[in-house]
Amino acid sequence: VALTSERYGLRRLPFSQLTRSDLAFFEGLMPGRVVTDPEELKLFNVDWLKSVRGCSKLMLKPQTTAEVSQVLRYCYERNLAVNPQGGNTGLVGGSVPVFDEIILSTALMNRIISFDKVSGILVCQAGCILEKLSEYLEQQGFIVPLDLGAKGSCHIGGNVATNAGGLRLLRYGSLRGTVLGLEVVLADGSALDCLASLRKDNTGYDLKQLFIGSEGTLGVITAVSILCPQKPKAVNLAFLGCQSFAKVLETFTTCRTMLGEILSAYEFMDEKCMELVERHLNLSNPVTGSPFYVLIETSGSNSTHDEEKLTNFLEKSMTSGLVTDGTVATDDKKIKACNLMLWSLRERITEALTHDGYVYKYDLSLPVAKLYELVTDMRARLGQSAKNVVGYGHLGDGNLHLNITAESYSHSLLDAIEPFVYEWTARHSGSISAEHGLGFKKKQFIQYTKPNEAILLMQRFKAMLDPKGILNPYKMLPCSR
Amino acid sequence: VALTSERYGLRRLPFSQLTRSDLAFFEGLMPGRVVTDPEELKLFNVDWLKSVRGCSKLMLKPQTTAEVSQVLRYCYERNLAVNPQGGNTGLVGGSVPVFDEIILSTALMNRIISFDKVSGILVCQAGCILEKLSEYLEQQGFIVPLDLGAKGSCHIGGNVATNAGGLRLLRYGSLRGTVLGLEVVLADGSALDCLASLRKDNTGYDLKQLFIGSEGTLGVITAVSILCPQKPKAVNLAFLGCQSFAKVLETFTTCRTMLGEILSAYEFMDEKCMELVERHLNLSNPVTGSPFYVLIETSGSNSTHDEEKLTNFLEKSMTSGLVTDGTVATDDKKIKACNLMLWSLRERITEALTHDGYVYKYDLSLPVAKLYELVTDMRARLGQSAKNVVGYGHLGDGNLHLNITAESYSHSLLDAIEPFVYEWTARHSGSISAEHGLGFKKKQFIQYTKPNEAILLMQRFKAMLDPKGILNPYKMLPCSR
Repeated sequence: VALTSERYGLRRLPFSQLTRSDLAFFEGLMPGRVVTDPEELKLFNVDWLKSVRGCSKLMLKPQTTAEVSQVLRYCYERNLAVNPQGGNTGLVGGSVPVFDEIILSTALMNRIISFDKVSGILVCQAGCILEKLSEYLEQQGFIVPLDLGAKGSCHIGGNVATNAGGLRLLRYGSLRGTVLGLEVVLADGSALDCLASLRKDNTGYDLKQLFIGSEGTLGVITAVSILCPQKPKAVNLAFLGCQSFAKVLETFTTCRTMLGEILSAYEFMDEKCMELVERHLNLSNPVTGSPFYVLIETSGSNSTHDEEKLTNFLEKSMTSGLVTDGTVATDDKKIKACNLMLWSLRERITEALTHDGYVYKYDLSLPVAKLYELVTDMRARLGQSAKNVVGYGHLGDGNLHLNITAESYSHSLLDAIEPFVYEWTARHSGSISAEHGLGFKKKQFIQYTKPNEAILLMQRFKAMLDPKGILNPYKMLPCSR
Repeated sequence: VALTSERYGLRRLPFSQLTRSDLAFFEGLMPGRVVTDPEELKLFNVDWLKSVRGCSKLMLKPQTTAEVSQVLRYCYERNLAVNPQGGNTGLVGGSVPVFDEIILSTALMNRIISFDKVSGILVCQAGCILEKLSEYLEQQGFIVPLDLGAKGSCHIGGNVATNAGGLRLLRYGSLRGTVLGLEVVLADGSALDCLASLRKDNTGYDLKQLFIGSEGTLGVITAVSILCPQKPKAVNLAFLGCQSFAKVLETFTTCRTMLGEILSAYEFMDEKCMELVERHLNLSNPVTGSPFYVLIETSGSNSTHDEEKLTNFLEKSMTSGLVTDGTVATDDKKIKACNLMLWSLRERITEALTHDGYVYKYDLSLPVAKLYELVTDMRARLGQSAKNVVGYGHLGDGNLHLNITAESYSHSLLDAIEPFVYEWTARHSGSISAEHGLGFKKKQFIQYTKPNEAILLMQRFKAMLDPKGILNPYKMLPCSR
């Protein structure tokens, strides 16, 4: 992987250089949790997609909020840049350094602080891995209101910092509604305790919202309070084939009406996605021969009622020709494996794509009716110059994942894709980043979605909370200096 | 009603005084929509509870965002204080002037801008009355994700500015999740367009969140984009009597499990509330002889399934003695009246209380298990000095409305209630304002819920966005100058 700074021809901002006395300070503060070994650091300097690479010489692994506070106070005084890092699963180059920023990892901040079974409110440190939280909660009869493909490694703090969306948003809403409180350490090291555990609190501005989705540029999230739904008693899955995107849309409308409150996911993928998953990961698609596939999940409190609703819906969509083929998994220990397999077909597309070559990733919000047109347009535009052009995503939320693969990175292919893809999106009043954030790779395109006044106001917030700009520099905000 | 400034012994901040040339400017800007008649102004200087009174000499009624912008630009330059006002239904004295602030009313900004039936996204001006929006949406098969007793007069802009909670929050979540975009005019008159209509957008800080719940202190909301759920096909109500608060709680746990995803409201009220509603409003309670009453609403997509769930739940709670008596209304045109009547018993408690005398209102978030203890404690503490001490509220959200009535306002009774009620709440890590906001009457108690650093940060945001402090002064924030 080329160094980001070289590939993009960037100049390092005038932050201080790390000195021996800095290292001595950190070693004194957290002995044994100061990483300087270049081999060990490699993994944390490169993003999961292997698309960007920094050259940090130091990673710190605090265990407590007080330690994060001391680190930032020191860095702020010394003018040392800091790159907060969770599970390093981000897809826009936001989680790794661009130059030599100190990596501040939440890996050792993985303690569950409290869980209240009456209210369903979980309080935990920022470094808890999503899947671990999920396992813990399931034992108590609850679930995390968030689920995504990277759950095995992503940290809840990183999820909140990037306002992750994922597979359950359709049902449980965004983190802006389910996150009840945050503890954050600001750039100067001062801690802000907004870790309330109340469903409702209207005493003043909702400060935590500014940190949700700020991608580590305004503060470091150290703890999270989150409202968790009860574990649904019945979960059913249907994996269906549709002959056109118009039928995918009509199936969605039908299922929203007929499944109503038990609909918990409506994902779509095109046949190209399925080909890649089959070829690169050796998964097998139980339903074949359709240009489009749909994964529907229901979650409810009464399995008889839920199955009846699902059966009625399937009958209707089969007889009316919306759906041509399909398979169904209803909740039962025996078929848990089948359930997992169906979800894998959807969740592992990202992984399959990385095996296909260099991936140009786009994560767009668009009016649902227009969603797939962009994929078709792009395919026609790129012709033979791309290896594969695929579309999939959270249709229920109007969220398309458009991915283009090629044997290797090429400037000319990028020029054929961008700014075309952003202009197309802006023309349909969409968002150029529905859930992945801006990070390093999308920051210069923010103006396709946000008006100038909004960008200026963002810069004022940044300047107010981090006047030296030490927190995750070169990310999210267009350069202001 | 005594002048607020006199009752509380306040000093006017050094804003400019309104001159004849100011009036001429406004009259030129919006001829015929400039109110200076003292009689007409009376209504807008006093809050709905008749508990606070200002002495504004001018109300402006803009129709467009551009007009709001021009008004604020002028006021900002002239250093004239402004009190944004929606339906004037607030309960904490936030919606009326304290001194002679100019009232900026959204009453004429009542246009629906667009509604998309596929996505359920409504875009409208801030002055739309909640009930009108509700009627409009129902015709299209949708509902507003928000419902509250004041719906007949409150404005959606005011709802958003105060982050109103209400009766549907349990099911559809808070406005922080359902409001997708806002248009706001800042103190200096510049307009901020964050009126996106996308379910998901992760391109930068979520600026609109800062204005949701800011009670008009950071900007004037001029338009709202909001995600509306489909109208449920079946709605059922149950009005039940419980012999103790412990049984109210156990009934809640049971119903959360058995009704699951169709539960859309769980409200409780004590027998004192019902007495007042019967005495002052002449409503009749179909279930009598219980110290506590519970109103349960289900909303779902299949009436057969929903009624079956409700019947199972009722059977279970009757046979196990959780509930001693009750009445049920299932969705059907014929019994729509019955449905309305049952909701009135709950929704009109606020109104009944105003007929009982001067009302000391508290709106608290507390752990559900502790919720009613505060009412009992307060009743014991006040003894004969209060007329009535009642408790009701959104139990499902941990939200208690504690109300104390007396023949008239008395300082000594207030001293017996406060700060006791706030200390009690803080001891249980609650919030001293769950949904009503801080406004004028609660602002000096913010520190019982928010830590000092949070209050300081709020003040920094205020100073940044409204450096002259002209927007809704004397409200929400503790005095900083």
